[in-house]
Amino acid sequence: MQVEAESDAMVGEHSVSEDPSSQSAMQFGEYKDSLVATISQHLDLKHHCTSSAAYRIADLGCFVGPHTLDAMRTITEAVKDKYKAGGGQSSGTPEFFVYFNDRVTNDFNALFAKFPEDRQYFAAGVPGSFHGRLFPKASLDFVYCSKAVHWLSKVPEEELTDPNSPAYNPDRISYINAPTAVCDAYLGQFTKEMESLLSARAQELVHGGLMVLVIPGRANGTQYPSWSQVFMALEPILLDLAKEGMVSKNKVDLFNVPMYFPSPEELKNIIQKAEGFEIVELSTFTRISFPVFPTEVLRGAYGGLLTKHFGTEVAEQAFDRYEKEIPTLRLRNPAEGNGLFIYVTIKFNKS
Amino acid sequence: MQVEAESDAMVGEHSVSEDPSSQSAMQFGEYKDSLVATISQHLDLKHHCTSSAAYRIADLGCFVGPHTLDAMRTITEAVKDKYKAGGGQSSGTPEFFVYFNDRVTNDFNALFAKFPEDRQYFAAGVPGSFHGRLFPKASLDFVYCSKAVHWLSKVPEEELTDPNSPAYNPDRISYINAPTAVCDAYLGQFTKEMESLLSARAQELVHGGLMVLVIPGRANGTQYPSWSQVFMALEPILLDLAKEGMVSKNKVDLFNVPMYFPSPEELKNIIQKAEGFEIVELSTFTRISFPVFPTEVLRGAYGGLLTKHFGTEVAEQAFDRYEKEIPTLRLRNPAEGNGLFIYVTIKFNKS
Repeated sequence: MQVEAESDAMVGEHSVSEDPSSQSAMQFGEYKDSLVATISQHLDLKHHCTSSAAYRIADLGCFVGPHTLDAMRTITEAVKDKYKAGGGQSSGTPEFFVYFNDRVTNDFNALFAKFPEDRQYFAAGVPGSFHGRLFPKASLDFVYCSKAVHWLSKVPEEELTDPNSPAYNPDRISYINAPTAVCDAYLGQFTKEMESLLSARAQELVHGGLMVLVIPGRANGTQYPSWSQVFMALEPILLDLAKEGMVSKNKVDLFNVPMYFPSPEELKNIIQKAEGFEIVELSTFTRISFPVFPTEVLRGAYGGLLTKHFGTEVAEQAFDRYEKEIPTLRLRNPAEGNGLFIYVTIKFNKS
Repeated sequence: MQVEAESDAMVGEHSVSEDPSSQSAMQFGEYKDSLVATISQHLDLKHHCTSSAAYRIADLGCFVGPHTLDAMRTITEAVKDKYKAGGGQSSGTPEFFVYFNDRVTNDFNALFAKFPEDRQYFAAGVPGSFHGRLFPKASLDFVYCSKAVHWLSKVPEEELTDPNSPAYNPDRISYINAPTAVCDAYLGQFTKEMESLLSARAQELVHGGLMVLVIPGRANGTQYPSWSQVFMALEPILLDLAKEGMVSKNKVDLFNVPMYFPSPEELKNIIQKAEGFEIVELSTFTRISFPVFPTEVLRGAYGGLLTKHFGTEVAEQAFDRYEKEIPTLRLRNPAEGNGLFIYVTIKFNKS
C-alpha cells in the first residue's frame, strides 16, 4: 500500500465549512430528511447481524465544520431507529465507530476539538485521499461523502495546457464557455476519480453496505452549472491583471480550477459501470435564491489555489476586484438564482 | 457514552518526543527486541482466524514522535512474520489498521504529516483519554502503551492540598521525600487510573488479545525512582522563588506534579486484580548512565504544567535557574545514573 500523493486543491475550502453561517453549513438541513429516509428505506439489517460488532461509518472529505458532526449524529440516530424498529429490542443496537476522513492537510486538531461532549459514537480521524484505499477490507457499513467529489484532485493538465491538444484552454480558468474538448477533458478526470473512489470503496464496504453522495452538479442537458458565477467573475479579473502586467498571460493560461459539476446522467453512467454498485435512489434538489458568494467565502474556497499559483499579491488583488464587482454580479446573472445538488444512494453488493 | 474531561498534564510532553535525539526517542531501540520477542512468543493466531478481517492495533498515549511510528512498524512486521511462520502462506496475512490515540490536545496534524509513505497499514487518529472507552467492544487485537501511564490524569488534589489531610504535602512538588501518606495518595491515584484503563480495554480487546505496557518505574523495595532528579532540582528552585517573593508560598504548596513511577510489585498487584487479564511477561530494564535532563527537555516535559500553574514568568525563571544548576546536579546525584523501565505483557482472556 502506498499513500497517494495529494494535491493542495482542497486546502482552502476548510475555512468555508468552518463558518456555521457559510453556504456549506446552511445546506445540510436541506438534505437531512433525505438522509433519514434513505436509512429507513434502504438499510438492510440482515447484512449486519452480530449485535456486538460495531456499525462503522465513514465521512469522506469531512472538512472541519459543524456540518460533518450534524451529519454523523443524523446517521447514527437514524441507524439506531432502524435497529429499534427492526428488532423491537434496543439491546440489539450496535455501538458506532465513525471515521472522519479528509486529506492530510485538513485541520484534524480543530475537528477533534469540536467533538460534542454527548456524542454517541466512538470517533477517529483518517487522513488520506479517498481516491485510494483508507480502510481494511469489508470494514465499512455506511459511507457518506458530501460536497467533496466535485473538487478534483488535479486538473487534466497535460491536455489543458498543451497548445497542440484539442483541449488546450488558454484565456479560461475552467470549462465554462470552453470548447467541447475541454469539457470532455474535465469530465474524463472526474470519471477517473469517481472510478477510483468507487473501486476503493468496493474493497472496503461490507456486502449490502450503503453509500450516500451529495454532489453540487448541473441539470441534464445543460452545459454549465449555476455555480459557474464564480469562474465567470474570476476569469475576466485574472485576464485584466495579465493585461495590466501584474501577472504573465502565460501564468493565467496555465491556471485551471480543479472542479467539475456533473449532471445526474453522467453520474449514473459512471456508477452503473462500477462493479458491485447499484443505484437505489437518485434525486436532485435546488437552492432557491442562491446568493452571490461573498468575498470571504470565495477567499475560503479559492484562496489557497490562487495563492499557490499566482502568489499572495495577485490573489489579494483578485479578491479586491471581486469585492467591487459583487453588485454587478447580482445584476448580471439573474438566472443564476438556483444551485443544483445531486443526492444519490448506492448499495454495494459483493459479487 | 460521555467523553471524559481531560487534564492538561500531558500537553507539554509532546515536544520531547518530537525531537528524535530526545531521551524518549532514544529509548525505543532498547525494548524493540523485547517487543518482537513478545509477539513471537505470546501472539495466539487462533483467536484471529478470519484472514479477511483486519488486525487492529492501538497505540495509547502516542504523542507525536518518530518513536510511535517505529513501534507500529515493528509490531505490524512482527505480527506479519508470526502469521507467515504459523500458516506457511503469506496470503493469510491480514490487513492492519493502526489507531494512534492521545488526548484531544495532542497535535494530530503533526503526527499525520509524519506518516511514512511506505507504511504498510491503514491508520487513524483517535482523540480522547485512554482511561475511558475509545473503541467498540472486542475490536482490538493488540494494545501498546509506552511511557504514558506514569503521567496521571490528575494529582489526588483533595488529599495533597488539604491541611487536615494526613497526605497534606506543603514544601514539596511530588511524593519524593514525602511521608508515606503522600506516597500512598499518589499510588492510590495511579491504581485508580490503571484500573480504569484496564477496565476499558477489557471491553475493547478480543479474547486472547495482547497488551504491552512500558512504564518508567522504580525497583521493588526502593522508595524513589532514579527519575526523581528532576523533582529534586525543581523543588528547591520553586521554594527559593517563593522565599524571594516572586510567587506565593501557598501557590508552591498547591503544586504537585501528576506523575507516579510504580514498582513491578505494585503493578503486578493492580493487574492481577483486574478481571480477565493475565501477566504473561514482566521484565525490567535499566538505562546505563542516564544523563541529567537538559533544560530544553525539562521545558518540553514540564513547561506546560509550570506555566499553567505559575504563569510564564515564574516558569521561565525556574528553567533559567535549572540551567545554571545542571553542573551541580551531575555531581550531586551520581547514584542517579540508572533509569528503570518496567516492560509488561498482559493477555486478555474473556471469562
